[in-house]
Formats: sequence, C-alpha cells, structure tokens
Amino acid sequence: MKRGHVETSMQEKLDQLIEEHRHWTKKGAVATYIPELSKQDPDLLGISICEVDGTQWQAGDWQAPFTIQSISKVAYFTCVLLDNDFEELTKKISVSPTADGFNSIVNLETKNEHKPLNAMINSGAIAGISLVKGATIEDKFQRIFRMICDMAGNEALKVNEAVYLSEKRTGDRNRALAYFMKGTGIITVDVEELLDAYFRLCSIEVNCRDIAIMAATLANEGVSPVTGKTLFDPKTARIVKGVMTTCGLYDGSGEFAVDVGMPGKSGVGGGIMTVSPRLLGIGVMGPALDAKGNSLGGWKLLQSLSEEWDLNIF
Amino acid sequence: MKRGHVETSMQEKLDQLIEEHRHWTKKGAVATYIPELSKQDPDLLGISICEVDGTQWQAGDWQAPFTIQSISKVAYFTCVLLDNDFEELTKKISVSPTADGFNSIVNLETKNEHKPLNAMINSGAIAGISLVKGATIEDKFQRIFRMICDMAGNEALKVNEAVYLSEKRTGDRNRALAYFMKGTGIITVDVEELLDAYFRLCSIEVNCRDIAIMAATLANEGVSPVTGKTLFDPKTARIVKGVMTTCGLYDGSGEFAVDVGMPGKSGVGGGIMTVSPRLLGIGVMGPALDAKGNSLGGWKLLQSLSEEWDLNIF
Amino acid sequence: MKRGHVETSMQEKLDQLIEEHRHWTKKGAVATYIPELSKQDPDLLGISICEVDGTQWQAGDWQAPFTIQSISKVAYFTCVLLDNDFEELTKKISVSPTADGFNSIVNLETKNEHKPLNAMINSGAIAGISLVKGATIEDKFQRIFRMICDMAGNEALKVNEAVYLSEKRTGDRNRALAYFMKGTGIITVDVEELLDAYFRLCSIEVNCRDIAIMAATLANEGVSPVTGKTLFDPKTARIVKGVMTTCGLYDGSGEFAVDVGMPGKSGVGGGIMTVSPRLLGIGVMGPALDAKGNSLGGWKLLQSLSEEWDLNIF
Amino acid sequence: MKRGHVETSMQEKLDQLIEEHRHWTKKGAVATYIPELSKQDPDLLGISICEVDGTQWQAGDWQAPFTIQSISKVAYFTCVLLDNDFEELTKKISVSPTADGFNSIVNLETKNEHKPLNAMINSGAIAGISLVKGATIEDKFQRIFRMICDMAGNEALKVNEAVYLSEKRTGDRNRALAYFMKGTGIITVDVEELLDAYFRLCSIEVNCRDIAIMAATLANEGVSPVTGKTLFDPKTARIVKGVMTTCGLYDGSGEFAVDVGMPGKSGVGGGIMTVSPRLLGIGVMGPALDAKGNSLGGWKLLQSLSEEWDLNIF
Repeated sequence: MKRGHVETSMQEKLDQLIEEHRHWTKKGAVATYIPELSKQDPDLLGISICEVDGTQWQAGDWQAPFTIQSISKVAYFTCVLLDNDFEELTKKISVSPTADGFNSIVNLETKNEHKPLNAMINSGAIAGISLVKGATIEDKFQRIFRMICDMAGNEALKVNEAVYLSEKRTGDRNRALAYFMKGTGIITVDVEELLDAYFRLCSIEVNCRDIAIMAATLANEGVSPVTGKTLFDPKTARIVKGVMTTCGLYDGSGEFAVDVGMPGKSGVGGGIMTVSPRLLGIGVMGPALDAKGNSLGGWKLLQSLSEEWDLNIF
Repeated sequence: MKRGHVETSMQEKLDQLIEEHRHWTKKGAVATYIPELSKQDPDLLGISICEVDGTQWQAGDWQAPFTIQSISKVAYFTCVLLDNDFEELTKKISVSPTADGFNSIVNLETKNEHKPLNAMINSGAIAGISLVKGATIEDKFQRIFRMICDMAGNEALKVNEAVYLSEKRTGDRNRALAYFMKGTGIITVDVEELLDAYFRLCSIEVNCRDIAIMAATLANEGVSPVTGKTLFDPKTARIVKGVMTTCGLYDGSGEFAVDVGMPGKSGVGGGIMTVSPRLLGIGVMGPALDAKGNSLGGWKLLQSLSEEWDLNIF
Repeated sequence: MKRGHVETSMQEKLDQLIEEHRHWTKKGAVATYIPELSKQDPDLLGISICEVDGTQWQAGDWQAPFTIQSISKVAYFTCVLLDNDFEELTKKISVSPTADGFNSIVNLETKNEHKPLNAMINSGAIAGISLVKGATIEDKFQRIFRMICDMAGNEALKVNEAVYLSEKRTGDRNRALAYFMKGTGIITVDVEELLDAYFRLCSIEVNCRDIAIMAATLANEGVSPVTGKTLFDPKTARIVKGVMTTCGLYDGSGEFAVDVGMPGKSGVGGGIMTVSPRLLGIGVMGPALDAKGNSLGGWKLLQSLSEEWDLNIF
Repeated sequence: MKRGHVETSMQEKLDQLIEEHRHWTKKGAVATYIPELSKQDPDLLGISICEVDGTQWQAGDWQAPFTIQSISKVAYFTCVLLDNDFEELTKKISVSPTADGFNSIVNLETKNEHKPLNAMINSGAIAGISLVKGATIEDKFQRIFRMICDMAGNEALKVNEAVYLSEKRTGDRNRALAYFMKGTGIITVDVEELLDAYFRLCSIEVNCRDIAIMAATLANEGVSPVTGKTLFDPKTARIVKGVMTTCGLYDGSGEFAVDVGMPGKSGVGGGIMTVSPRLLGIGVMGPALDAKGNSLGGWKLLQSLSEEWDLNIF
C-alpha cells in the first residue's frame, strides 16, 4: 500500500479500529488537576479525518464535545508567527524541545536566558498570547479565537464556562509561570488578564471533526479544505508542523515521533491532532490519559492508523 | 517546483550554493576540546547528494576527509534497534529530546530514572554500543564499524589514529558519563574498553559522499542505493529518522526542524547528514561550528537547499 | 584577648573600624530590582552593638534608617516555631541550607517534595507567614510585626510606604514562588493578601540599633535585654540561630561561617544582624551589596570585629 | 545545668544513654552500596568523649572498629587549608552548603563555575586530596594519613583492605565525579591514582575513641589533647569547624544544626564526630544509617547529649 492510499472500505476500517482500541481507555485516567475535567467520561474514543480536498471520515465518539486545551497552542503559535518577525520572536520564545513536563518552571530559571523553551509548553504558550497582535488582551484573545474557528471551519465554537472557571480557580501553576516571566521581562502585560485569555482559549469546546479540520488546514499549508480560505502561508505552516513534531506531545514528543511519526499536538482534554503534510488531518479524542498527559487510546489509535496507511513522515 | 524535483542544471546550482555560503565558515570556529580537531581547516565547505536510485552529485570540498564523530551514532542506534527488543531497549535508553547539551550529565542524575534521554547524545550513544550484539566489545565495535562501511558503501573506511588518540587522551567528560552509568547499572561492561570503541567509532574518517550515501540508505528504508544490499528494515529506518528529527542536532534539534525540516545528524568534525525520506540523502561538511557544536556553513547550506528544492518534510 | 572581652576604649575602636572599612562601600552596589531601594545612599556604613545586659555601643551611620527586608525573616521564623509543632512544621518547610539564590524557584519543582528548603529564603518565608497564628492574614501580620517591635524594643517601628509599594509593584518573582506553592498545597490562603503582608514586613524601617537589639534578644535566649520581657524560650532561640548559621546569608552562608563565624541574617536593604550567643547582638548597615545580595561593607566590618574580639563561635 | 558542666556520675549517664538509644539502631540500615560495608553489625552503638585536657569517657560498643569514611574529609580539608592560600583555594573548591546528596554530580555541571561546592561532599574531597602538598599522590596520601593518625593520637591506624578493595571495585560514581573534574580542569593529576588514595583514606579503620580525640583536637584549636603536639593553628581549626557546621552532615546539615547544634562530620561507616569548641570532642558509632547516610542511633544519642549537657553552640 502506498503512502496516503485511502481504502475503499475506509468507514468500516475506522469503525473496526475504534472497537479494537477501545480497551486502551481502561488503562488511562482522566485529568484531575482541573476539577471540571475529572467529570469526563473515560470510556470515550472517537476519530475524525479530513483530507486536503475536504473529504471527511468519522468513527466512534467523534461527536462528543471536549475542551481543546493545549491543542489551542497550535493556533496561538500560528498567530505569533504571523504577527512577529521570526528573528525577533526567538529572543522571547525558543523552538527547543525539552525533556521536562508541560508545566515545568525549572528551565525558566536555569536555561535559555530565562526564555520559554518552546511555544507548545505552558510557559511558551502564555508568553505567546501576549505577542499576538492586538491593542488589548481581549483583542489578542479574539484574534486567536478567530484563528481557531477559521482553522476548524466552525463559527459556532464556544468557551465551556464551567471548565474555564475551574481552570481559573485552580490555575496556580500557570500563574507561577506567568509571574516568573513578568519578573524577567518576557511578559509585559497584566498577568491575570493574560491568564484569563489563556484559560478561555484552553476551554474552547470542540469535537474530533473540529480538530481534524484544523489539522487538515495545516496539512494543506494554510488553506482551509472546507472553506477554501487562506489563513496563513506555507512557510508558517511548516514551522508550526516542525515545532509540533519536536515539541507537540510535551516530554512524550520523542516517543510519538517513533510510534506515530506525524506532527501532532495533544491536550489534557483528551484530544490529539496529527497532520499528514499535503494529505490529511486527523483528530482523535479519548479523555483517559497516560502519565504524561496524552490520550492513551488516541495515541494507540494513531499508531495503528499510521502503520496501516503508511502515514509516518520519516 | 514540486518536492524533490531535481533541476537539470543541478551541478551548477550546487557549485553556486557552495560559493554563496562559503562566507558563513568565517562566522564559526573549529572544535578545540579535542586538540586534534583544532587543526582542521575552518574554511572548508562541501556537499554531496545521493538519490535513492544511486545518482550522485558533489560540490565544493566534498572530497576533504573529516572524522565522522557523532554522525556515527546513527549507525550505533541502527544496530541497537536491530539487536534488541524495542520495549526492552527503552528500559535502558529513552527516545526523548532534550534542551541540554550533547555531553550533559545532569539528566543522568535527576531525570528519567537515570537513563540516557536518547541515543543521539553522548551518554545514550556510549550506553548504546554496549547493547549491540557481540561477545566482546571488539565484536560490538566490528559490528558497528561494518554497519558504517555498509551504509556508506565504502569498504575502505579507516579510523584516524591521531584523532582517536587525541579523543582518548582528553575524553574525560565521556569517562564521567560512562562511569556514572556504570554506577547506576546502565553499563555493565568495562568502561575503558567501551570508551575505546566509542573513541574509535567517532574517529572514522569519511567525506561528504560517504555520509550522503549513509543518509540515502536511510532514505531508501535500509537498502543501500549503491550496493543494493538490504542492511535493515523500513521500520528500523523510520525509528532512526524519527529520533534524528527530534534529537539529532542536540539542543539545536528544534531550530533545525524549523530551518531545514529534515531528519539530520551532526558531528563536531563538521559533518551533517540529512535524509529526504524515499528520495535522497545529503552530506555536508564545514568544520567551523556554531555555539552548539553544529557546522555553521553546513546548516545554512542545508537551509537554502531545503527551501529551493522543497525538501522540508513538514 | 579572650572571647567576648570588651575593651575599655570600645567606642574609639568602633569609630576606627568604621573608618577603616568605609572604602568597601565603593566596591558594592545598592539593590536595584526594587526600584525604591536604588535610591539609597551607597556610602553609608554603621554599626550598633547590644550586650545581653543591655549595654549599647554605636558608631558610624547607625542612625540612618533602612528597610529590614529579609532580616524580618528571623521574626517570622520565630513566630512559626512558637505557633507550630516542629515535626508538623517540617512537613511544610525544611531546615536545609542551599547553594541556590534567595529567590530561586527550581527547588520547589525538583527537590524536597516541593517544600521550601528553609525559612530564610523567600519561598520559605512567604510560606512561613501563612503558618503563623492568626484568624486572618492581617492577624498574622500583626503578630509578626509585634514580634519585630518587641525584639527590637522599639514600639515606634513603621512600614516605609514607598518601599512597600515599590516591592508590591515589582514583586513578580515572589508572586511566582507563592503561586507555585499555592499550586502544590503548601500555601492555602489568598496569595495576594499573603504577599501584601510579606511586602509590608520587608519594608519595616529600622536602624542599626533596632537590629542589634533584635540580635541581642536571640543572644539572650528570648529575653529582651532592654525591656526584660520574655519573648520566646531558649530552645526556640537555638533553633533560630542554628538555621541562621546554615541558611541566613543565602548562598553566602558557608562563606559567612568561615569569615565571621556567627549566626547572621542579611537583608537587601543593607543590614546584617549577627548573634554572639549568651553575649551580645550586632547590627550593621551598608546599602552597597555584593553579588549575592549581602552588604559588602557590613560583612567586612563583622569579619574584622569577629577576629579582633574573638566572637567566632567555632 | 550550665554549658559544658560534667556530671560526677558521667560514666553511669553515658551507659544509660547508650541503653536508652539502642532501639534506634533497629530503625536504620547499614550501607549497602559498598558491598563490604553491608557486612557490618547494625546493632552496634558506642560513644567516646575526650575533653580538651585529655580526660576521656567511653560507653557501649566504643571499641568496635569501623571505617572512617567521610570523617576523613575533615583531615583532608585541614591539610588543604594548611597547604594552600585560602583565596587561591576558593577558586577550586567553595565553602558553600548544598541541598544535594553527598555524591551529587549535578552541581559540577550547572553551578559555581564547575567547582565543587564544598570539601565535605565527595567531589570536593576528591579534588581536595590533589591540592595537598606532596610531589606524588602517594606523598599526598601519606600527608593526610599522618594527619589522621596525629589528630587521633594513634600511630597504629591501618587501612581495612577488604573495605578498600570493595570501594575501589564499586566506586564508579566517584570515578564519574573525578573524571568530570578532570575534564573541567579542577583535577590535573591521574584520576585512578587519586581515587586509590581516596578509597584508602575512606577505609582507615578507627573506633569511637579515635574520632573523639580527632574532634577534641579541633575543639582544642589544633593542639592534640593526648600528645600535646600542635598540629594546626586556631584559625584553621575555626574554618574547619565552620564548614563542618554548614556542610558536614551533607544535606542533613541543617537538621543537625537544629537537633544537635555542634560542628559535626559523619561517615557511611556509621561514625559521627562532633566538636564542642574549647571544651571537648565526641565520637559516636552506629552502622545503621538514616536515608541521608548518617548514623541514626549516633544522631539521636548526640541530640540527647547536646540537650542534657547544654552543648549546643547557638
């Protein structure tokens, strides 16, 4: 089977894959550090695929809503790249992978001249929002929110208020990251307002199809496969996908490159998006997570898909 | 121009690229921590390309010999993968990228249960040699040396004795890494003998063509494009390329993914190899290094090539 | 001359010592990270000594007011010890010296089960305030403020509003520390309110005599040498002095033990207090600091005094 | 009871204290990382006291031989201070306490310009031996060995060959530390020869009386209370005791200052020495260790003694 070949019985295949992998959901656990997330159903498993021509496939619990969480970082980073000179940007946020966890603060003190190592971990994402164009933080929020809607081809996306409030109440580690960066001059805006935007962006409710279409927009080098709108240029798309590959699954990025071999981004809401450049985007969801905060069932599903359809880019 | 398209005037283009990028060699510096390496000519810049059908192109100082250094880690890792069950292997060496330097010892003490983070940094490479099949360390050395010759399609490769002795004399940081791992049980063989193999493998003399053919063998999923010999399977090739992408340029791996966008591996002798999967391999050399130990001219040359010929895999 | 012997010409000696050491003030620099502190006069140098029988000696700029800053931590820690069972307390704050700076956040993430290493660095002091008896944070503040007044035998102490506001405006590193500890459960009260108390306690204006009498109260095992009031018990005094000895000068504590050899505590306002157990307390001030944030002139003055009067406790 | 007062029934008191504290030996465990040490009897508990006038007291298993281990570091450091200018010395080894364990390598990479933080942890001790006067390492060894014999007032001290060989065979972590420092230029001599001296010095067999007399020599400011020989000057003695206080019990130094309040030094052979300046020296032994490598029974015994006889220096 050659790369990217799509079987005639694709729907059956997807249905079958979901069933084969559903047992993995029993081996993970939903996130509990954000209380509202602990209410998620751990048994869910869904998938959606969007080809660059707009063809779509879905299976399992693909319609189940979940919060986008860190997958939104892909959209911040896209906006950050569009709104800043790359050389200037790297004086504030690097593009360096790290073996530390997504909310680690150690590196801000000890490495890299106090800069966040990359935009896919919390510190870099929070700093990133402040670098997006906009007179006010609300403007910056709107710009990113709009990018997410545009990439998902879905004007109806909304913030899940319960999750947002839960994150805001318990987001002290993120406050620590933000105030540290305020102290070192990486962040110059009001921290609470910035975090409010961050928590809202993390709490946007999506389903598998939304993130599959976002991924397909990256696969299609910035042109939405569903609306045809050009959202960003191919070079920006490539940088985003390069950073997703090296940093997108946090300290699990290396294993994901081996197991799945596609640019990806996960969120603690249970979603993972992956991009097959120039071919298709995939969105999976499964709220039961592994120890590093990545959807366990989603990961295994992507691994099987990558092998069967030869989607590994390496 | 579509991906991988090869221009008719390829030779002229390569000659021109070498001339355009030669000025970068003035901005770097040859490695000095291994005394023998400090004798290299900093002005050299060369390139060699090998397509998966065996077609080759060369320009600049492609014939200038240099020591393979860390590029040999690609061959150890290939052998390690062939000779070990992957699950078992990851109990000894992870596949996790890191923001620390190539000879960092910190992570062995503080992270990842004392395991080397990946096989592309010194600690992981040294541990890796000991995991290759072979009754004695000499057998292990021979197995890896043979793999390098086979991947390069060059039976005439030899260890540069002056560099080898220089590394052996001054390799105290590597001794520290090895003894630390001996202390934690990752290494169970004799350390000095193991390091002797490591220093010899780092000191193998190659030129741009050798490493381009090695890269082309990876591009061709384990089958040498010059000898036709099958050296390893496609799955092993993909794992190697995945780990090269996330870890191959040390703490510069993230920037390389952005700038060049190909699986790569650098060495402090001035070489960098990159792989364009299923298409071609590239070897560049330029002994003047940047601050992270990567060939400065080589990096810039690859960046231009990647853009012009659309070789970025993302 | 035997230990603690007080010369007849003590006043002359002190005047002379001030003159001999004033040149050191030229080699340091006033703190600038709190903008208001940067307005201090770097040339000041003063000393005050209070014996356990209440006899006092003063020289130089001993009347110049300065903010107490971290010297107030001695009082928090005293209150924390009085108000908590020691075993229970060590589950929240350790008594371990550290080679990291006074505002380091690294250890909160990587060591000691996320507990502050000791109560003399910022993280431990902030956590400490929350452990002092008091229904509200204002009550806790008042308890500590009262302890400082009582230890100094000075009812007229006041917060310097300009410094307090300056600290509050720029205290983002302290906010990072506090929110990190909120996130890990070490702090359970409102962070901004807690920091407000911390910034006010740091901004209490004192002079050399005030801190000398505080030190003399510790020397006298909890009984004020000027008011005769018993403020705490000998065992508490010994714990405070033990922790001052190992942790009181931040990452300069080891050098201070060698150079001066007395339990001490410094503040970035330029003050240092030292205790000669059962004998006397010393307060020096000199706003020009060394690289670790300790008064340079003050340190050198104490070193000479310790040698001449054999005050080294070792 | 006032400080240092010696009871008439001292012998009875000591016998009673041993019996009261013997149960603590059941709560610790003998060191196992040096195989030969694991053969020690965990139930032993002994004490010896030597006053500065030479009066001695003993109780429990004070005659049981044990290896001196890290307590020998006190003697290296004394020699290092005698043989080097202090300013020059601090360019190679600092006097800074640390929250990291005795064999930590992290700080050599990340802090303090790659210098060992202090001479009481393994890295600083190994580097220290190389800084002692002597044309050869054997000369350096002999100088330190002689200092230990002189401080102990015991010409019959010998290396325990079985322990020495066991340490040599398994001392890979120490090799890592030493080669790291060779790599950074702190150590310039042959590493294996230097470690051989280190392992022999750690393996000197002593009993409680030997280390009590060593401690009493420090208490007596360099003059042996048993031979009357002047071994070093009071200033050197004070520096040694200052560094023992801040660094002598490794990362347990802060707790020891609180619990016991005397300059001390422990070894994984089960010994602890403490100094009551100008008064007496104490040697305890109890091979069952706590988690940080300090004798558990010995620590508790010293804590009781310190309280009952008011030996806390703070």
